[in-house]
This record gives sequence, C-alpha cells and structure tokens, in this order.
Amino acid sequence: MANLLDPTARGRVILVGAGPGDPGLLTVRAVEALKQADIVVHDGLIDPRVLDIAPPSAQRISVAKQRARHTLSQEAINALIVAHVKTGAIVIRLKGGDPFIFGRGGEEVEAVRAAGLPVEVIPGVSAALGCAAEAMLPLTHRDHSSAVSFVAGQCKGLADQDWSGLAGQGRTLVIYMGVATANDIADKLMADGVAPDMPVAVLERGTLAGHRAIKTLLADLGQMVAREKVASPAIIVVGEVVDLSDAEDKLARWARIAEAAA
Amino acid sequence: MANLLDPTARGRVILVGAGPGDPGLLTVRAVEALKQADIVVHDGLIDPRVLDIAPPSAQRISVAKQRARHTLSQEAINALIVAHVKTGAIVIRLKGGDPFIFGRGGEEVEAVRAAGLPVEVIPGVSAALGCAAEAMLPLTHRDHSSAVSFVAGQCKGLADQDWSGLAGQGRTLVIYMGVATANDIADKLMADGVAPDMPVAVLERGTLAGHRAIKTLLADLGQMVAREKVASPAIIVVGEVVDLSDAEDKLARWARIAEAAA
Repeated sequence: MANLLDPTARGRVILVGAGPGDPGLLTVRAVEALKQADIVVHDGLIDPRVLDIAPPSAQRISVAKQRARHTLSQEAINALIVAHVKTGAIVIRLKGGDPFIFGRGGEEVEAVRAAGLPVEVIPGVSAALGCAAEAMLPLTHRDHSSAVSFVAGQCKGLADQDWSGLAGQGRTLVIYMGVATANDIADKLMADGVAPDMPVAVLERGTLAGHRAIKTLLADLGQMVAREKVASPAIIVVGEVVDLSDAEDKLARWARIAEAAA
Repeated sequence: MANLLDPTARGRVILVGAGPGDPGLLTVRAVEALKQADIVVHDGLIDPRVLDIAPPSAQRISVAKQRARHTLSQEAINALIVAHVKTGAIVIRLKGGDPFIFGRGGEEVEAVRAAGLPVEVIPGVSAALGCAAEAMLPLTHRDHSSAVSFVAGQCKGLADQDWSGLAGQGRTLVIYMGVATANDIADKLMADGVAPDMPVAVLERGTLAGHRAIKTLLADLGQMVAREKVASPAIIVVGEVVDLSDAEDKLARWARIAEAAA
C-alpha cells in the first residue's frame, strides 16, 4: 500500500478518511499523508485540529456540502481535484469517516483515473464505529446481533431507498445523516415490520466535545430528536444492542417527568 | 473520550482495535494506548510490528482463536483480563479490526464491568474498510449501492444465520471469516434469491504483504476459493460495486485458459 506515499512522487491524489471527529482517531498513515499535503480539499465537518496537521504552507479548500445548500457539486469537486493534481501538487482529499462508506470516494477515484492520474485511498474509522466505541454500543453481539448494516438517511431521498429487512430482531441498523428525517425513518422502519418498541440510540457529535448518546424506543425516535434538539452530525442505531450501551434512556426520563407533573 | 488514557490511572482495560493489518492503519490513540501497556492480550492475527509498539517490558499474551481449536475460551479470556487488571496493570486488549464488529468486544466490556473495573474502547478500521480501500472497492456508491451489511461466515455456524435480503441489487454484503465456508455461502445466497451472476470479490490478507484481490461471479465463488487456494484472513464482498474495483477477474482468466486448452 505504500507506493504513493513515496515523497518523491508528485501530482497525485490521496483520499484520506479523517475518522469520526476526534483527531486521535486518525490513522498513522492519514497523519503521514496530511504532513505531505500541498493542497487539502476537505469536507465541512473536519475538526480544525486535523486540518492543522497539514503544513502551514498547504492550501486548505473547503468543499462543505450542507443539506439543501451544496457549496460545490460533486462534479465541481472532481474537477477541482483533477485541476490541482495536474499542476504537480500532492492533493489530500480529506473526508469524514471512511472514504468508501457514504463518502462518494468511488466517484472521485473514477474521476481522477479518468483523467489518467494516480490515486490512493487511506481508509478511516467510519462514524458508526467511532460513535459506537464511545457509547459502549457493540454493533454485533453473539447473543443479540449477527449482522450490522449501514444506510444513509438523506442520500438520494429517503423515499427512494429500500431498507426492508435491514433492521429487526438479531440485526443492527445504523443510519448516517438521519437527524433531519428521523420521524420519517421511524415510520419507514415500522411500516417495514420493525417493532415500535425496538430500542434506538442517537449518537450526536460522536467523539467530539459536547457529544451525547441518548436512547428511546423506535416509535418515539422522531419525537425524542425534536425534544432533545439533536443536531447533525449524529448517527442513529436501531437494534437490541442499543440496550447494552451507555446511552441515556430519554424515554424513561420523559415518562418520569410526565408522571411527576400529572 | 480521553479520561482513561490518563497515565496516572492504574488497573484498567483498554479494548483497542488494531485495524486490518498494516501497522500504519492503527489510530493515533491506539498507538498511544499500546505505549502505556503493562500487559497486551492479543488476537492471533496481529502483526508483530504492532505488538512491538508496546514497551519491551510489557507482557504479551496471545489468546489466538483458531477454527476448531480454541486456545482459550471467551470466558477464559474475560477471566484473564479481569485477573490482570486487579493487580493494578494497564491491560491493552488488542483485537483485529474494530472491537465492536465481530470482535466480541461487547462481551469483554460486560465481563470487566461486572467485576467493577474501568474499561474504555478505542475503535479501529474494520477489516472490510481497510481491504476495500486497498482494492479500490467502494462499499457504497451513488449509482450501485445504498446499503452495506457486515456478517460473519462462521460465527455460531452458518446454517443458523439469517442473511435474507442483505445481498442483491443495490446492496453490498461483506462476509468476514468466510473462506472455509465459501461454497456454502454462495449456495445460501443463491437460495435466498441473489443472482448467480452477481459479482463477488475475495480480498485476501488485505493491507498485508502478499495481499490479493480477486473476483468472479457468485456461482463460482466456492470454486474460485478452491482453485486459487485462498487462505484466511480474507473477506468476501458481494455486490455490483465489486465491478468498480481493481480485483483481478479470475473467472475471465479461467475461461480463457479453458478455451485455449479446448
């Protein structure tokens, strides 16, 4: 895997997974790659401490995508990367989590190769893994879950996506970018046959300052997200394994408050 | 997340994900944790260069599990960890990949907590992510796959596992530890409705010396594994995204040889 980290090679792209947030969860190779950067093309959610690893002289270009406001289209990002590589620069394309899990890294690899330029991918700790470790939430477990699936809550529109069978007894479903559509997600899963009392966790700002791990039952997911004012970034985990975690039970707390007020 | 890395704290366990193999794919925090180890309790597939990061004085204990020959049962591993922590040692429990994806980390956390002892988890790059990056195989892709699922090919016995719906058009299925049962896996998936001509890749020794990425069609999976003498560790990826990867097409090669010999 080491060829493209050869410091004498010029004009190349390294897609780097920046991990879930905490700079300590970068890989050793990601740190090495950043230190060689001439240009860092980065997503919006990258911690400033991660960007600081690149040399002071390196140009930092944010291509932050926000819901309903795309600063740059994917095509423009591809063109930007290719143009910089053609000048002979070492371009680090820094992406949250892992480049090949909801990172559209595949499209960037295709674009760079179509331009006849060299590209390498350094994997990262995907958000689900980082958030789960922090919340002590085993994504698989001998007694509770033998399969874990990752989907995105807003990729291509929720309604277009087929999640049938991915959640339910014995399975863990992780939803990336699902905060804004949490209510629809719960409806979709219940319509699909998942029990309304299936445990569900929301892991907000995982591995960063101000992180929260909260849980409830599937039927209350949308309401909990609203009550607790959960903001992105956050991931949603659906499955029995949620009950093994340290996530705070917000349904119980809410029920107690309602009871005390009655 | 940083509390338990306080060097003054004694008598604790840190479950550390060692990543897919290449020592460069350890996280920065994993390296820091290893440097503090009094005891390293490690799986069998950990690279010696990773074990060398721990101080020379640290005791290294292998609890390698091999198919049909368990050196130590999970219960014995749990007891071993707890006994060492009680002496005041910093015990690093080093696991391949990520502790919470087929690492039985959840059970070890439960055991340590049941003994009233502190435990932290440092996530790792799971094998699928590391192998996929190396093989240029995007696990999700806007045009080809909106969901990726991870299952284990020998956990609890293949026949007991329900994989229905996890593979097929628009979905990627990753199977860990499936080399020995590759033929049964292909039969299981086809019985489940997955097309016999669905692309499938085998990523052997991912990120380590001697790694191979090869592909064929689902119906040929078991035979390809036998013809190519694939050995563990290897992961199997089933889905259209396989055709975007650099994996060498062994079905085509085999067909050419057959044709030339005819």
